[in-house]
Amino acid sequence: MVTRMSRLFLRTLREDPADAEVPSHRLLVRAGYVRRAAPGIYSWLPLGLKVLRKVEGIVREEMDRIGAQEVSFPALLPKEPYEATGRWTEYGPNVFRLKDRRDVDMLLGPTHEEMFTLLVKDLYSSYKDLPLALYQIQTKYRDEARPRAGLLRGREFIMKDSYSFDVDDDGLKRAYEEHREAYVRIFDRLGLDYVIVRAVSGAMGGSASEEFLATAVNGEDTYVRSPGGYAANVEAVTTVAPEPLSDEQIAALPEAHVEDTPDTPTIETLVALANERFPRADRPWTAADTLKNVVLWVRQPDGSREILVVGLPGDREVDLKRLEAQVAPGEIDAFEDGDFAKQPALVRGYIGPQALGAESEAGIRYLVDPRVARGTAWLTGANEPGKHVFDLVCGRDFTPDGTIEAAEVREGDPAPDGSGPLELARGIEMGHIFQLGRKYADALGLKVLDENGKLVTVTMGSYGIGVSRAVAAIIENSHDESGIVWPAEVAPYDVHLVATGKDAEVFDAAAALADELEAAGVEVLYDDRPKVSPGVKFKDAELIGVPTIVVVGRGLAEGVVEVKDRKTGVRENVSLDDAVARLTGR
Amino acid sequence: MVTRMSRLFLRTLREDPADAEVPSHRLLVRAGYVRRAAPGIYSWLPLGLKVLRKVEGIVREEMDRIGAQEVSFPALLPKEPYEATGRWTEYGPNVFRLKDRRDVDMLLGPTHEEMFTLLVKDLYSSYKDLPLALYQIQTKYRDEARPRAGLLRGREFIMKDSYSFDVDDDGLKRAYEEHREAYVRIFDRLGLDYVIVRAVSGAMGGSASEEFLATAVNGEDTYVRSPGGYAANVEAVTTVAPEPLSDEQIAALPEAHVEDTPDTPTIETLVALANERFPRADRPWTAADTLKNVVLWVRQPDGSREILVVGLPGDREVDLKRLEAQVAPGEIDAFEDGDFAKQPALVRGYIGPQALGAESEAGIRYLVDPRVARGTAWLTGANEPGKHVFDLVCGRDFTPDGTIEAAEVREGDPAPDGSGPLELARGIEMGHIFQLGRKYADALGLKVLDENGKLVTVTMGSYGIGVSRAVAAIIENSHDESGIVWPAEVAPYDVHLVATGKDAEVFDAAAALADELEAAGVEVLYDDRPKVSPGVKFKDAELIGVPTIVVVGRGLAEGVVEVKDRKTGVRENVSLDDAVARLTGR
Repeated sequence: MVTRMSRLFLRTLREDPADAEVPSHRLLVRAGYVRRAAPGIYSWLPLGLKVLRKVEGIVREEMDRIGAQEVSFPALLPKEPYEATGRWTEYGPNVFRLKDRRDVDMLLGPTHEEMFTLLVKDLYSSYKDLPLALYQIQTKYRDEARPRAGLLRGREFIMKDSYSFDVDDDGLKRAYEEHREAYVRIFDRLGLDYVIVRAVSGAMGGSASEEFLATAVNGEDTYVRSPGGYAANVEAVTTVAPEPLSDEQIAALPEAHVEDTPDTPTIETLVALANERFPRADRPWTAADTLKNVVLWVRQPDGSREILVVGLPGDREVDLKRLEAQVAPGEIDAFEDGDFAKQPALVRGYIGPQALGAESEAGIRYLVDPRVARGTAWLTGANEPGKHVFDLVCGRDFTPDGTIEAAEVREGDPAPDGSGPLELARGIEMGHIFQLGRKYADALGLKVLDENGKLVTVTMGSYGIGVSRAVAAIIENSHDESGIVWPAEVAPYDVHLVATGKDAEVFDAAAALADELEAAGVEVLYDDRPKVSPGVKFKDAELIGVPTIVVVGRGLAEGVVEVKDRKTGVRENVSLDDAVARLTGR
Repeated sequence: MVTRMSRLFLRTLREDPADAEVPSHRLLVRAGYVRRAAPGIYSWLPLGLKVLRKVEGIVREEMDRIGAQEVSFPALLPKEPYEATGRWTEYGPNVFRLKDRRDVDMLLGPTHEEMFTLLVKDLYSSYKDLPLALYQIQTKYRDEARPRAGLLRGREFIMKDSYSFDVDDDGLKRAYEEHREAYVRIFDRLGLDYVIVRAVSGAMGGSASEEFLATAVNGEDTYVRSPGGYAANVEAVTTVAPEPLSDEQIAALPEAHVEDTPDTPTIETLVALANERFPRADRPWTAADTLKNVVLWVRQPDGSREILVVGLPGDREVDLKRLEAQVAPGEIDAFEDGDFAKQPALVRGYIGPQALGAESEAGIRYLVDPRVARGTAWLTGANEPGKHVFDLVCGRDFTPDGTIEAAEVREGDPAPDGSGPLELARGIEMGHIFQLGRKYADALGLKVLDENGKLVTVTMGSYGIGVSRAVAAIIENSHDESGIVWPAEVAPYDVHLVATGKDAEVFDAAAALADELEAAGVEVLYDDRPKVSPGVKFKDAELIGVPTIVVVGRGLAEGVVEVKDRKTGVRENVSLDDAVARLTGR
């Protein structure tokens, strides 16, 4: 059935919505695809719902193709399974919680590992039932601290999540590969420009894990890539550390010596003073020679917290996202003035590693950047106001409790696999595939009998796609200053047919063409609005972004209509008689 | 693609689940269509999801056919719109409420009148934009006090809700009629056995309203029908009242007289005593001659409560559902011993209407059954222990504050339209159509400019279908002792193909037939399980309920397969070569 714009529930806007930060949000609202219902919560209008359904359809086809079976879980869930795995606590304020009328705790599911695990446990009991892959396309909830960018980070959103169940690691690897291939096909069909990067799994647990990121300047995620093909999200990048020195090599190093360094509250002032008062023969002191010790709180989901000091070269900042990925499910709080007052071991501005570590008197946990390797010598605080220590050697003069990947990654840093210098770029997380392993099956007791009649714990994979987010990400990848430019497979219609002027013949011819196209399987949005100027109609067509715009207007007298490619802007006059053949490619 | 049972995520059960009260619940769980996740909350397994999608598809097609446009609202909603209409309070504990991380009140939408009204207000402003009908097929939430009967009364469920918007009453009537016709087509296509009954609108407000009930002995709703075609839900039945008498007629009635009636705590003992001590010449006293006064609390959603006395013939009980429909959004609480102690005007067991009503000293609200008409005479309490009054005439000796439809409706009561005696039956509410009118538009300020440039309030209709409930209701209508019997349009598959024995040729032939059928557009569930006995396979096929069962087995040697109609049980041998033609009806 031809959709007529005169009756379509649609109001396009000339002005950008005040709260829209990114093009997809701006354009989805302006072109009448979605409408905000509450912060981070959107209603889908007819055009938006059509696109959403097409994205869902592609995802469904490709999941079915790898033999995954569709199910559908509730969004409103009981607490118990999430308590059994510890996530009821781990999720902290990110999960919407509620009590029912009997005061029973429930949650709105942010992800469904627990429920799938329990369902399979409920129904299956033998290795013969496996392998199994299940998926759902379903509404999920996360109470984001900062819902933003429209559909890119909402609080109610649609995800495809799937889970694989296998008896052994080979099976899991196979399921993971199948999902990976399905994801490649899905993101290709969605017309997304994307990269696959190595990821750390954060709160999800598990081992091997990759993310599919849509490349986008407005993306929230930073990732790195190298000329040799290495790609990872920033959280997953590992630092290339210098070789540790042997005991003999360390013995040959100069001894540490404490010096007065008045008025050096910052790394810069310290480096300047060092170069003036303690110059080195071979090369000047730089911030990279200093060891900076950053004090933080790590707060666990149960509310307990512990001091952590991170030691890193003075020319690098701590990257909170990298740090939080390391301490998850813990989160980081700032260490405040009042906190320093209670910790005499931490001399603010002059903290040195001699006073840190599990073995020290204060017993404060001390983790260092991998560049602070055994045998490296540092200029750092002497734990006394106005004093620093030179040539303090790691492994001789101080002993960290371990290393941590918390320093910022910089453009030009070496790729960990030796494939060249890293480049930084931004993206939107569209998909995530995990080899979960046995974490959930262990916690919830999902075991099956193997060939020998022995109970074995099932190994699982977990695979997600942001379905509603994809609608926005596609626009981030594909728009111009006039509006959206939909890739063919997800466009709400194939042809946007515009009738211009007031001539009844024009409207009759346009209506007939629309019917013919629909009959030929082409989905048509027909702008039949009688009192709207051609200029407004063209503007709306560009904004809405259907791939092909057909104009029936003055040319009709000569028997021609105009066919315009939304993406390239190329126009072409086509005879009305040939229009259907031209537009169906037949 | 042929679905093979060897890989289908399915486990049929031989035993009924312990909590299943009704056939649909029992069979949906046993046949592996759904699985309980929490009380009143279900997960859809692959077979169940297929049926659900078919029901949704039928609903969608018929809504599209009447020009309704599909949108999709969030389930997680802000409080404000529901406060503006008073429903935040009215819904009481039936709505799931929660607070987000900023302590903002939210709810899980039980129905979306407010959101639709606001959306249309947001986008539209002129009579030219109307008429408009919007719908969604979406997950809804109600925190039922007693979730029961599986999908029939759940706490998370899927509904189609639609809303019409018109400038005038004629438009609303037209929209209502269009929806009514669409509903008839939908329920016909779903294969439901249903009736359309008059309804009262309860908490929804508004005027004209009908319900579509699937007839089912296990239905929660009681409705009535007459030989002349009257049909109504019990809440909507109006009582046929006697003609009120004129002043002269009343003047001719005997006077009221108080009599000692010791030891008559019940209607029965009172009637016995009256017949013994005060016999009437023409006919004996019966319970229908007595006026019973029932004391109750009406509690409003804001917690305030008021005493209500309902006067009704002593042979009838108060029907709480009918009463609650009348006092909605108020609810009824019992009037307890302690409450009587605080109300000296109410002499327990001997309450008479003389002491009741707004004009009485106690000022207690008093509403009577319509049978207690002006000029009717009653035997009732005398407001003194051990005393009753005879010949107490309504409109002469006491004055009720009005009438109320609170008495039970009985088999044989006259239909209000004179179409004969009522018969009682039970059903499942599948659909409900309302002429809401301007209640929501008024509360939320939805106005448009009319042809004369004047602002007019829009009039609305609201129309619901229980989509997930329909899956269960269909089974209540269509099952036997062996399992489900799906109507063709909603069956998960068209053909259940069973291969029996161990013969590879049989399995090869069955697989080839399955492929041929799928190629011809027939959806096939192929039972290819190698080590399962024919008996188990047949039992599963009967349980799952696909309309046509095809068995490929021993007959194959003679080139025949067996085709069995699940509903009638009729079997037929068909040559393998003709099977596709036979099963596609071509």
